Amino acid sequence: MENQIRNEPSGPNPIYLDYNGTTPVAPEVVDAMQPFFAPEFGNPSSSHAYGQAPREALTRARQQVAGLLGCEPEDVLFTSGGTESNNHALKGIVMTAHRGGHVITSAVEHPAILEVCRFMGRFGIDTTYLPVDRTGMVDPQAVKNAIRSDTVLISIMHANNEVGTLEPIEAIAAIAREHGIPLHTDAAQSVGKMATRVDDLGVDLLSIAGHKLYAPKGVGALYVRPGLRLENFCHGAGQEKGRRGGTENVALSVGLGMACAMAARNLDEASARMRAMRERLHKGLAAGLDDLELNGHRVDRLPNTLSLSFPGLAADRLLNAIHDDIAASAGAACHADSVTISHVLSAMQVPAERAKGTVRFSVGKFTTKEEIDRAAAVIVAAVKRLRAA
Amino acid sequence: MENQIRNEPSGPNPIYLDYNGTTPVAPEVVDAMQPFFAPEFGNPSSSHAYGQAPREALTRARQQVAGLLGCEPEDVLFTSGGTESNNHALKGIVMTAHRGGHVITSAVEHPAILEVCRFMGRFGIDTTYLPVDRTGMVDPQAVKNAIRSDTVLISIMHANNEVGTLEPIEAIAAIAREHGIPLHTDAAQSVGKMATRVDDLGVDLLSIAGHKLYAPKGVGALYVRPGLRLENFCHGAGQEKGRRGGTENVALSVGLGMACAMAARNLDEASARMRAMRERLHKGLAAGLDDLELNGHRVDRLPNTLSLSFPGLAADRLLNAIHDDIAASAGAACHADSVTISHVLSAMQVPAERAKGTVRFSVGKFTTKEEIDRAAAVIVAAVKRLRAA
Repeated sequence: MENQIRNEPSGPNPIYLDYNGTTPVAPEVVDAMQPFFAPEFGNPSSSHAYGQAPREALTRARQQVAGLLGCEPEDVLFTSGGTESNNHALKGIVMTAHRGGHVITSAVEHPAILEVCRFMGRFGIDTTYLPVDRTGMVDPQAVKNAIRSDTVLISIMHANNEVGTLEPIEAIAAIAREHGIPLHTDAAQSVGKMATRVDDLGVDLLSIAGHKLYAPKGVGALYVRPGLRLENFCHGAGQEKGRRGGTENVALSVGLGMACAMAARNLDEASARMRAMRERLHKGLAAGLDDLELNGHRVDRLPNTLSLSFPGLAADRLLNAIHDDIAASAGAACHADSVTISHVLSAMQVPAERAKGTVRFSVGKFTTKEEIDRAAAVIVAAVKRLRAA
Repeated sequence: MENQIRNEPSGPNPIYLDYNGTTPVAPEVVDAMQPFFAPEFGNPSSSHAYGQAPREALTRARQQVAGLLGCEPEDVLFTSGGTESNNHALKGIVMTAHRGGHVITSAVEHPAILEVCRFMGRFGIDTTYLPVDRTGMVDPQAVKNAIRSDTVLISIMHANNEVGTLEPIEAIAAIAREHGIPLHTDAAQSVGKMATRVDDLGVDLLSIAGHKLYAPKGVGALYVRPGLRLENFCHGAGQEKGRRGGTENVALSVGLGMACAMAARNLDEASARMRAMRERLHKGLAAGLDDLELNGHRVDRLPNTLSLSFPGLAADRLLNAIHDDIAASAGAACHADSVTISHVLSAMQVPAERAKGTVRFSVGKFTTKEEIDRAAAVIVAAVKRLRAA
């Protein structure tokens, strides 16, 4: 029932295998948002009748997000997306500390972390970018070794967007807690695909991006552990209990709430289904091509992500060849224009030649067996054709 | 045709006279956004087929915003709303300057300016809050006198949200230009209600909030004059030509574009119509109540805004009495919970007693004559009843 994209795109309609780049908004989410454009357009801060339904809807949405994260609704801030959540978390912690300070992160983070650290560097914040192993994983021991007396924050992503590798957040959390240092995780890619309960992970801050889990672009959330001191990022009027200025994005927050509620309802089943689709694609490709190389951790990996290197073949060339049939990404879609060799693959010490031939396939809840089988056939044929040319 | 709110709210349906608080999303805007939830859900940064329509839609939306502002599309950044636009403008300018610095603003700005200045004060930025006269207007000469050798920014709102007074931006711009100091204006309340062309105003930065002009909450824009050095606010991937990280909020940006295009189409007519409705309300009330006091400038004022004091009557009491019939605000709706006596009325030296009896009525493009006449009758009757009690 949920297994379809509601309408066909107006242009060519390739099989969508780029769910890590963005997801379609689920029909139920679209429907849930509509009333809050009109007629329930009121400002939640208004004390007159028009404020009531939007205010109640925000409350419900916050409960739904909290339900998925296993936290209290009041620990959830709505934001404009994953990037704002990350900016808020990092800058917010650093600014509550004394001037200067030290942040620990990894070399494989999203630009929404790396660029924030680079920026903060101009204001005296020193950042350690931890290396990863060949599977893309950070060593908790390296986190421990990097801790200094002036370390104010550890920020390690939950799941890598390009290769899907899951970082050992629980082990890092134990170290962070032991040293009394707050731990943030960018969970944009994992929320909705697997369990992301904040107490299980042991994190103090967690970022969500709506458009990675069937809510729209332009909304996200930040979990903030109660008691944690965090400076505001968007200063303004007293919305979000004084923690984020700006009239609340009611409709899209309702959408994010609905998306979280839907994800919570069948998380294990959805994970298993995505994993099955991904494995089916991997097998289908491997059956036709014997030199494929998998990037990322074989086991500790997002259930939907398949980063494959096609030796001797430039990813762009392959993607162009299958363009009418399949939509997938070389490098991270979020900044496709600026990708040369992905910083993630570089950090994993993937050789340049192999990195250049790397394509990320990512399946989602609308992906069907038929699509997978057709995609595998198209890709295998294209690779053979290109290699023969 | 546009003169109706598409559906009725599910609860009681009072006459909506709080358009400065927020506006319903226009049906045309709702329709324009839909495709970008699905099927055109793609990430604009994706180089595959799904990226194309969203990318083109963003381009068109940017042209539409630029059309209303009389600037080039590349000078428009999409943001999550007016508060982000203001944060970006103020913090962005201050951070490109050397450490320290001085900002000139007014005492009647929105909290999204005042709170940013307060925050920056903790980092050595000194702010001058210029006083206003009894109509709420800043004296350009006072701006000139406040300029110091370390002044890095002047930020004066275009129109006040509570009383509607228009600030003399053109005169302030001449002074700013003469001293080589960038001028920002928060135009959240004026855009869509009157002409706001950046070259006519002479501003270097201008903030828009979508939900004040029939686009949704959660989207805004910032005009940045070409060549102006401005640090980023949301650091991340290379979206918005590297000036704002975060996957673009395609649907809501399309909505903002459509709202701007609609506003540009009949700005003078819409202004005149709103002015007529507002005057009709004012006359209707004055006909029944002979002691009304108008707040704000009589002439240089937003065409839709009517701030009235009802001597000897607490605004809350009046609003409660008319609650089932009329939705209006005491103080600014954006922070209704925290209003005691409005900082705007205080700055205008409105006596406390009079300030407490102040209600802001703001009409919009869906307001009808019938609503105005009914509102006037209801308010007059309520005031008389309350005073007799």
